[in-house]
Amino acid sequence: MRNVNAPDRSRYARVRAASLALAAPLSEADCQVQSMPDASPVKWHLAHVTWFFETFVLERFEPRFVPFDPAFRVLFNSYYQGVGEQSPRPRRGLILRPALDEVKAYRAQVDERMAALLVRRAGDAEFDALLTLGLQHEQQHQELMVTDMLHALSGMPGYAPLAPLHDARAATAEPLRWRGVDGGLVEIGHDAARDGAFCFDNETPRHRVWLEPFEIASRPVSQGEFAAFIEDGGYRQPALWLSLGWDWVRSGRREAPLYWSRDDGGRWQQHTLRGVVALDEHAPACHLNYFEADAYARWAGARLPTEAEWEHAARLQALHGVGAVWEWTASAYLPYPRFRAWAGAVGEYNGKFMCNQFVLRGGSRATPAGHARISYRNFFPPEAQWQFSGMRLARDV
Amino acid sequence: MRNVNAPDRSRYARVRAASLALAAPLSEADCQVQSMPDASPVKWHLAHVTWFFETFVLERFEPRFVPFDPAFRVLFNSYYQGVGEQSPRPRRGLILRPALDEVKAYRAQVDERMAALLVRRAGDAEFDALLTLGLQHEQQHQELMVTDMLHALSGMPGYAPLAPLHDARAATAEPLRWRGVDGGLVEIGHDAARDGAFCFDNETPRHRVWLEPFEIASRPVSQGEFAAFIEDGGYRQPALWLSLGWDWVRSGRREAPLYWSRDDGGRWQQHTLRGVVALDEHAPACHLNYFEADAYARWAGARLPTEAEWEHAARLQALHGVGAVWEWTASAYLPYPRFRAWAGAVGEYNGKFMCNQFVLRGGSRATPAGHARISYRNFFPPEAQWQFSGMRLARDV
Amino acid sequence: MRNVNAPDRSRYARVRAASLALAAPLSEADCQVQSMPDASPVKWHLAHVTWFFETFVLERFEPRFVPFDPAFRVLFNSYYQGVGEQSPRPRRGLILRPALDEVKAYRAQVDERMAALLVRRAGDAEFDALLTLGLQHEQQHQELMVTDMLHALSGMPGYAPLAPLHDARAATAEPLRWRGVDGGLVEIGHDAARDGAFCFDNETPRHRVWLEPFEIASRPVSQGEFAAFIEDGGYRQPALWLSLGWDWVRSGRREAPLYWSRDDGGRWQQHTLRGVVALDEHAPACHLNYFEADAYARWAGARLPTEAEWEHAARLQALHGVGAVWEWTASAYLPYPRFRAWAGAVGEYNGKFMCNQFVLRGGSRATPAGHARISYRNFFPPEAQWQFSGMRLARDV
Amino acid sequence: MRNVNAPDRSRYARVRAASLALAAPLSEADCQVQSMPDASPVKWHLAHVTWFFETFVLERFEPRFVPFDPAFRVLFNSYYQGVGEQSPRPRRGLILRPALDEVKAYRAQVDERMAALLVRRAGDAEFDALLTLGLQHEQQHQELMVTDMLHALSGMPGYAPLAPLHDARAATAEPLRWRGVDGGLVEIGHDAARDGAFCFDNETPRHRVWLEPFEIASRPVSQGEFAAFIEDGGYRQPALWLSLGWDWVRSGRREAPLYWSRDDGGRWQQHTLRGVVALDEHAPACHLNYFEADAYARWAGARLPTEAEWEHAARLQALHGVGAVWEWTASAYLPYPRFRAWAGAVGEYNGKFMCNQFVLRGGSRATPAGHARISYRNFFPPEAQWQFSGMRLARDV
Repeated sequence: MRNVNAPDRSRYARVRAASLALAAPLSEADCQVQSMPDASPVKWHLAHVTWFFETFVLERFEPRFVPFDPAFRVLFNSYYQGVGEQSPRPRRGLILRPALDEVKAYRAQVDERMAALLVRRAGDAEFDALLTLGLQHEQQHQELMVTDMLHALSGMPGYAPLAPLHDARAATAEPLRWRGVDGGLVEIGHDAARDGAFCFDNETPRHRVWLEPFEIASRPVSQGEFAAFIEDGGYRQPALWLSLGWDWVRSGRREAPLYWSRDDGGRWQQHTLRGVVALDEHAPACHLNYFEADAYARWAGARLPTEAEWEHAARLQALHGVGAVWEWTASAYLPYPRFRAWAGAVGEYNGKFMCNQFVLRGGSRATPAGHARISYRNFFPPEAQWQFSGMRLARDV
Repeated sequence: MRNVNAPDRSRYARVRAASLALAAPLSEADCQVQSMPDASPVKWHLAHVTWFFETFVLERFEPRFVPFDPAFRVLFNSYYQGVGEQSPRPRRGLILRPALDEVKAYRAQVDERMAALLVRRAGDAEFDALLTLGLQHEQQHQELMVTDMLHALSGMPGYAPLAPLHDARAATAEPLRWRGVDGGLVEIGHDAARDGAFCFDNETPRHRVWLEPFEIASRPVSQGEFAAFIEDGGYRQPALWLSLGWDWVRSGRREAPLYWSRDDGGRWQQHTLRGVVALDEHAPACHLNYFEADAYARWAGARLPTEAEWEHAARLQALHGVGAVWEWTASAYLPYPRFRAWAGAVGEYNGKFMCNQFVLRGGSRATPAGHARISYRNFFPPEAQWQFSGMRLARDV
Repeated sequence: MRNVNAPDRSRYARVRAASLALAAPLSEADCQVQSMPDASPVKWHLAHVTWFFETFVLERFEPRFVPFDPAFRVLFNSYYQGVGEQSPRPRRGLILRPALDEVKAYRAQVDERMAALLVRRAGDAEFDALLTLGLQHEQQHQELMVTDMLHALSGMPGYAPLAPLHDARAATAEPLRWRGVDGGLVEIGHDAARDGAFCFDNETPRHRVWLEPFEIASRPVSQGEFAAFIEDGGYRQPALWLSLGWDWVRSGRREAPLYWSRDDGGRWQQHTLRGVVALDEHAPACHLNYFEADAYARWAGARLPTEAEWEHAARLQALHGVGAVWEWTASAYLPYPRFRAWAGAVGEYNGKFMCNQFVLRGGSRATPAGHARISYRNFFPPEAQWQFSGMRLARDV
Repeated sequence: MRNVNAPDRSRYARVRAASLALAAPLSEADCQVQSMPDASPVKWHLAHVTWFFETFVLERFEPRFVPFDPAFRVLFNSYYQGVGEQSPRPRRGLILRPALDEVKAYRAQVDERMAALLVRRAGDAEFDALLTLGLQHEQQHQELMVTDMLHALSGMPGYAPLAPLHDARAATAEPLRWRGVDGGLVEIGHDAARDGAFCFDNETPRHRVWLEPFEIASRPVSQGEFAAFIEDGGYRQPALWLSLGWDWVRSGRREAPLYWSRDDGGRWQQHTLRGVVALDEHAPACHLNYFEADAYARWAGARLPTEAEWEHAARLQALHGVGAVWEWTASAYLPYPRFRAWAGAVGEYNGKFMCNQFVLRGGSRATPAGHARISYRNFFPPEAQWQFSGMRLARDV
């Protein structure tokens, strides 16, 4: 991993505290539940991000490292084969021990030991790099805590809103405009001068890509626009869908995005962190999966932008509404030319998932402030719906 | 349902308090978890038994019945089609709302309303019958709370013992003796004079059965005896097993009963409510399913008793150790001759499950005191292991 | 196995020829197909019954036994653990080699070798017993060839009728009469004097059973009667069904027996061996499973007879229409008191299946003439529909 | 679809005859079997390619079109939603009617009607285009007939070799050499001048791509080389595998490519169209899936080429052994910039599958002569093994 500017101690404390703040309005039972295999319990998230510091920082830098609990090495290892076995992902919700209080004690102890290293290792490039990675990692899990909790609570009768969990940002209401972008040979990938010192390995190396001229929408597709797609029978026309997408529509009898339902008067409403609310026509459509985004684009006579188009347009400041929702791109998640994963077990962070996933760009209102950047490559399988994922249109000229 | 002696008010309070006492050592998260589809969360049990009183007693007898929460009608209905829809059984662990505190408030309110009816309806035969049924029902779920919690905690690293949850009774250490029993035309089924006024519908009507002479073991099969079956390769000899049983052995690579494992020295140990402990050679083998019980009996050159043999022998006081474990019988769970299910929705209690299950007799250390009786018919599918289920041998003469 | 009268050589030839006659109207592809895991390809049936003679007779009695093909020992072993491994049941349709012609050559060679033994071993009791068992076994598979082929062809557009495969017997048209039967201590099980010398082990030993007085229908339930159950909403009323039965109805969206459908005018028609034909109101309802039979009986205010009631009534000649369809009884398939399975691998024939199945009595138009008898115990799991299975009502008095 | 040179009548006859020739050594039962959901019966292939001509040519151009059998419209529609319903793919092996003879009659009748149109419509651009497409389509299914039949027969004991089905081409034995290729802005996609008039829509439009300089292997990876990967523990090192690939290895306990096994002496052998034969060290490794190809490349310190690199190198004539196996590329199967699918139902041919598949380039010994070309994009999901799929290494410079 590259040397990056050392985060100061207050940044460590700030990021760590933000995780606990997200969990604060939740009950012990809320933190235990896993509502589907793709999601994880909040308790597990709180422990796993701590395990990350313990395993990749404390174990590396503490002189006489002793683990908090040897069982945690397996329990809270997400997928790092280089660290050993993992407990089965779909059964994370059944991990009753350690209890939430013990996980908090685990966090406190690791924080204390990290504080000691933050003093002792100040200026050590490798330490700083791993520390930064740990904080970026924890921020990613903060977003997952929000999306996973929303999923767990979405079907609950009379569920208490979790508004404090995260504020919605103001909806974009502007009319959609097409921005023309010249093609040509452009550079794509992390640019430290503009994007900041840190990035994940998958954003590198910066490289050249040839683009044909294209147009891209000034803002994401709105909820009102997506509702028009539904009204027009979008979920009933196989010609609009990829083959796997149509299988997904039929096998699940899908008729609308996740969390959308109709109220007694037939009007669309949606489950949100603030409870069940009416559709906000001007806000970005959210919780779309790739199949839905792709089908909508076809219906609209357009297409999704590639990630190179998106990044190039974003650097030209042609895009509004970036950061409101993660935006599906037409690009499969694959290595950049001459990509090298980080050395060691942290090299499993990104590279090994480069198969059957699509890239999303931008960020969402659940993304911690300052976490995302223009070169950031988020990725999910095409069927994933529970993220704050939407879309922006593009078209050929 | 038959008229039975009215339970006094203190009995109602006692039974209801016992449920909360079982949950007392558990955390909120413990009460939320469902570790397999056959098990239910403790929170769900606490709510469901309350729903039973609300639905079958309050709704029937309160002048202006208003439900505590209309959503509970579906959420906490286990399987009563006559009451309407049910939430899906395998997803009971995902019911985050109502929270545990709300369920306790639900219990308190229903208890208060029941207290009023207990005064007003004293002497009403139908009321008394439904009240008694509700208490018997709650006692059944008390046993399930124990078995389900044991299952949820059994795989936890360093799990805190739940010893207060239930005390083990002393192990029977006597040598096995064969008790000869004459056959002939005997009477089977509930006998109010000897069994007490209450019974479930499936214990009736009392009827005649012809029995050939047989011998039955004086006590249940012990853990030491079952260990000898394992050492002799019992789990590796298909000739000992029913066809479905052998499928079960192979598909799950079974080598021992549920909760048995070997310690570092290769000695058997088992997960119990007191934590992981060494095998107690003299205690009854427990957590066997029907396949294991049937295979052990074949290995031992014996067989399981039929439920009629068991009941007849028990009435003759030929059996020791009754109540230590539920004892699998060779009898499929079927209606007695001229059986009539109770009228109305409570008629779904027993009759509709008379298919692909086997009868267990006796009772276990998790059975509330005074709940079981000689005519009691417990029943589970042949693959069920997580109950306190063991066996007693019989043989032809 | 008990000593029985030796079948003469012509009986061997007759039974063996009957299997080939059943396959005669079928193409090579027809004989290859396995339409569901419960069914087997006709080619497999033809080979398996031959394997039975080869394994249990030739291997036992030929001086220098050499198998036709050593691979067949596994390929055509249905479920005899005592003989070794078996090829997986659901994949029998993928056994392309040996081809049908090779299977016929296998049959011819085994027949030749059997012919030699039939001369040399005449009068040997053990030989005669195994020979008889092999022929009875082949007759059972003849019925399965019919039911499995009907299943494979039932969904085919424009499928050629297989009328030559088996003739329908004349429908019973008589009005239903209730026959009263006195109860008391009766004897049940195989009676060589009346049933003939041969029986399967599961029909023994003859034993006493206490019966309460009951009434039983003079004839099976007719197709017209079952249609009335459907019209009355029988498949939409959970109160009529066992719990597992209602799960089966809902998960499969069942609305009628297997092979029933409505023609363009809404009239019931059914797939049969003669093609798709209109319902025959007076013929016995067929292809019911246990759930359907049980639900119909409950709807009709009656119940299914136990197998002891059925057998006792049949011996009293109270029943008409026996042999038109297999009749579901209310009895789980369990061992008779003091049952002993045959010694050796043939002991796996019946005993190991005594779990989660129900007994059917009588016989069907697909049963080879002379094969069934009053004491015969057929058995299938409660969800099985593809047999020629119907029902007869009984009721308490 | 673009106008292309009209195929002459003899080409139609030649391609159609080649399908029947492939089926000639197969029995009727062989042609019926479907050994896994991804494969189809040979009978189905023979009918489906005929259905393609009937539906897209005869129905479009015959004045008074009458289908051969209206049921075929559904039975033999593979996935064209624009044509209506399809029979379920995993159940194609259960289509007993029409029988193989009827399918051959279907072929003959359609051929006769096509012959008439070939005269009448000569020179009609749309007709010629659809005719060519039908022939290209049939050639694709010819390769599938070979791969599907190999799969069906691979597990058969003593299976008769299908050598006549297809001849192996001579193995390439040359030492591996790295060919350096300059990068820069190159053109990719169908080039009618060099590739011939016909191509599929997914090969268009020709477009520019920026390539960094790279090296590419002179020949595919050989069986001997792949065996070395296995000996080195390649299937036991998670660090070599994509995350989904490692799941695939573990869930299936994979230790070698499909069709590889060890003989009694521990030497590798493989199922081929000529029967089970020893490994040919110098022949290209075959029946690899993407996961295996990707893991091998990582083990070898190299990577797979992108499809643009492959195509560019192939045009430079830097590659040997092209056409021996389909070569996995590192490129997800996605639309080329400004891709437009063909209009109408034939537009479903390629575009709707652009999700979760990877591109293979080249061709195999099962590919009909003259079918493939440099711009040809074959595609399969990453787990597919049963194709004649191998790999070629590339690396950065």
